[in-house]
Amino acid sequence: MTLTAGALQSELTAKDKPAMNKKNKYISYFRPTIDAMDGYTPGEQPKILNIIKLNTNENPYPPSPKVKQLFGNIDYSRLRLYCEPQADGLRDVIAGLHGVKRENVIAGNGSDDILTIAFRAFTDSTRPVACLNPTYSLYPVLAQLQGAECMHLTLNNDFSLPDNLLEQAKKANMLIITRPNAPTGNSFPMAKMVEICENFNGIVLIDEAYADFADDNCIELAKRYNNVIVSRTLSKSYSMAGLRLGYAIAAEPVITGMMKVKDSYNVDMLTQLLGAEALSDQEYLRKTVLTIRQSRKRLIDGLQRLGFYIVPSAANFIFAAPPDKNGERLFKLLRDHAIIVRYFPGEFTGSYIRITIGTDEQVDKLLKIAGDIFPAV
Amino acid sequence: MTLTAGALQSELTAKDKPAMNKKNKYISYFRPTIDAMDGYTPGEQPKILNIIKLNTNENPYPPSPKVKQLFGNIDYSRLRLYCEPQADGLRDVIAGLHGVKRENVIAGNGSDDILTIAFRAFTDSTRPVACLNPTYSLYPVLAQLQGAECMHLTLNNDFSLPDNLLEQAKKANMLIITRPNAPTGNSFPMAKMVEICENFNGIVLIDEAYADFADDNCIELAKRYNNVIVSRTLSKSYSMAGLRLGYAIAAEPVITGMMKVKDSYNVDMLTQLLGAEALSDQEYLRKTVLTIRQSRKRLIDGLQRLGFYIVPSAANFIFAAPPDKNGERLFKLLRDHAIIVRYFPGEFTGSYIRITIGTDEQVDKLLKIAGDIFPAV
Repeated sequence: MTLTAGALQSELTAKDKPAMNKKNKYISYFRPTIDAMDGYTPGEQPKILNIIKLNTNENPYPPSPKVKQLFGNIDYSRLRLYCEPQADGLRDVIAGLHGVKRENVIAGNGSDDILTIAFRAFTDSTRPVACLNPTYSLYPVLAQLQGAECMHLTLNNDFSLPDNLLEQAKKANMLIITRPNAPTGNSFPMAKMVEICENFNGIVLIDEAYADFADDNCIELAKRYNNVIVSRTLSKSYSMAGLRLGYAIAAEPVITGMMKVKDSYNVDMLTQLLGAEALSDQEYLRKTVLTIRQSRKRLIDGLQRLGFYIVPSAANFIFAAPPDKNGERLFKLLRDHAIIVRYFPGEFTGSYIRITIGTDEQVDKLLKIAGDIFPAV
Repeated sequence: MTLTAGALQSELTAKDKPAMNKKNKYISYFRPTIDAMDGYTPGEQPKILNIIKLNTNENPYPPSPKVKQLFGNIDYSRLRLYCEPQADGLRDVIAGLHGVKRENVIAGNGSDDILTIAFRAFTDSTRPVACLNPTYSLYPVLAQLQGAECMHLTLNNDFSLPDNLLEQAKKANMLIITRPNAPTGNSFPMAKMVEICENFNGIVLIDEAYADFADDNCIELAKRYNNVIVSRTLSKSYSMAGLRLGYAIAAEPVITGMMKVKDSYNVDMLTQLLGAEALSDQEYLRKTVLTIRQSRKRLIDGLQRLGFYIVPSAANFIFAAPPDKNGERLFKLLRDHAIIVRYFPGEFTGSYIRITIGTDEQVDKLLKIAGDIFPAV
């Protein structure tokens, strides 16, 4: 008798069963902190196609056409070889862009990789980290993984930095300032940033994921101060979220230390090549960023006419409170109309929804639906 | 007067100088373990083109032609979107290949990412790790990063497992068995593996980076025991070192915990797509693996005729001691002839060089040069 694939499989299962039972009792060997934690929940990636997806701050426009061109020219057979472990070619492009040396640049598998490296390098059970509240919810998760205390520096009601920030963060070994901040979208005065960098006794990590959409940035502070790291990503302004490329700029000894922590080949060959190409097309970056800033104004103006309160935005998203201050209700209503935005429950954030800036067409669609829900006064 | 770019730059430098000096004194905020460590040194990636590169166990053949075909068909504009955070489509392909469920699979940015996740999940200052000696030199580096003790289980003189391995590893929370081992290339008896998995009180991580070149593998042990993780990579047998894709198979609660530790989008969109395509071409895998095994035999036979001692190899490389037992000398002589192999200094490994299996043409070139150095008796 010939066994079918199905029969063979059940035979194997039957044969394996006694052993399975023997060790069936699951014992956890995880570090207690891993068992205790929930892990980070990334924004939803819906599989429905005809949805308007404004929930994870992706760019509505494709990457630079130069990326497309290079894409068609890459020799796939080179994939058999390891990539440059430190991504030197890519780092040279980044260094050129910001007027620093290769030794001032580290590349990461997305800026999440840069953040992970920083947490593993600078925090542990005796080295707390301080971050804003509200801010990017990944930081406390990374702190927990390191067994490091995470101090939350609560922003003022208008989401500006508290006056006693430095006093509150005094015991931290690393202070993260997200600028523009997420999910609030606002930036912080440059004078305040200089004050922080000058006076904080520890690493100041400035997370600039959204800086290309803002009026200014803190790269000069990373050049000036030995304790400052500025991190960037290609996920938003360069339309490369799917590629995973981030980087950081800092003083040479800081980069040297971070290099020891990163995985040997953390940025793959295609990402190094395509990322360098995207970065070299600054003309395209300027064009798409300008378009998104114009659409941002269109969305803000439209929602303000409907009575929304909008936090001043320097990012490719806005944090918007509807007239009834019920973020959750609006989130659900938009969802019913096939528009996905992001809602962050909590006393501080629950009145708002976060809306990624899409195309003008998407903005107008959202404004129409919002207008039906909240007829203009 | 119009400033040239150069003049502007010196002006900026002059302006910045006072501040630079002010914070010029570099203070390290790194965790002491980071300052103390050297970091992992990956194998050299030489930039010279006409060199025979047999030092990092890359595959001499390109990836599957199916990868090439898909490569040409990917819509680059999709890169603007985030990839599937848990790589579900890819995990389904891997699960199908090994007869497990998606919940038994985690994908990583290379198997180094899988190893990093395991170290962060299962080791810390109170949870030591045990690994073989000699073995993959990354493990002690990852232990150091976690502040975890690394216990070295020294192999017998023939590189077989010591009889009292379980006794020696008793206090470890995770035991890594590299099978086939690197840089030695030999495998270990399956009965011994079963004994280890049955009796070790902790996680047994079986690093199977080279298993596709061996006669058997331990996937069934990962299916049978709740405390066993088998890790794999596409860098060697699938010719995808430049792409960075690894994965692990384990019991569902083990995978669930490891998922909490990984970066949210650790495997990028292109890697998910191209990796799944490579994995689905098992026919091509069998063909290239067979060719490499045949070339391995050719190289072993040729070197043995010259009086070399070769450790029995189940991998895509061999660990070979020349007649004069001077690994370093041979390494340098081959280098003079534009052949790069790898040399590991040390009492245990210094008599050997590690040679990646190349094409038959490369094998013959190496044999000719070796024959000139060590004329057959």
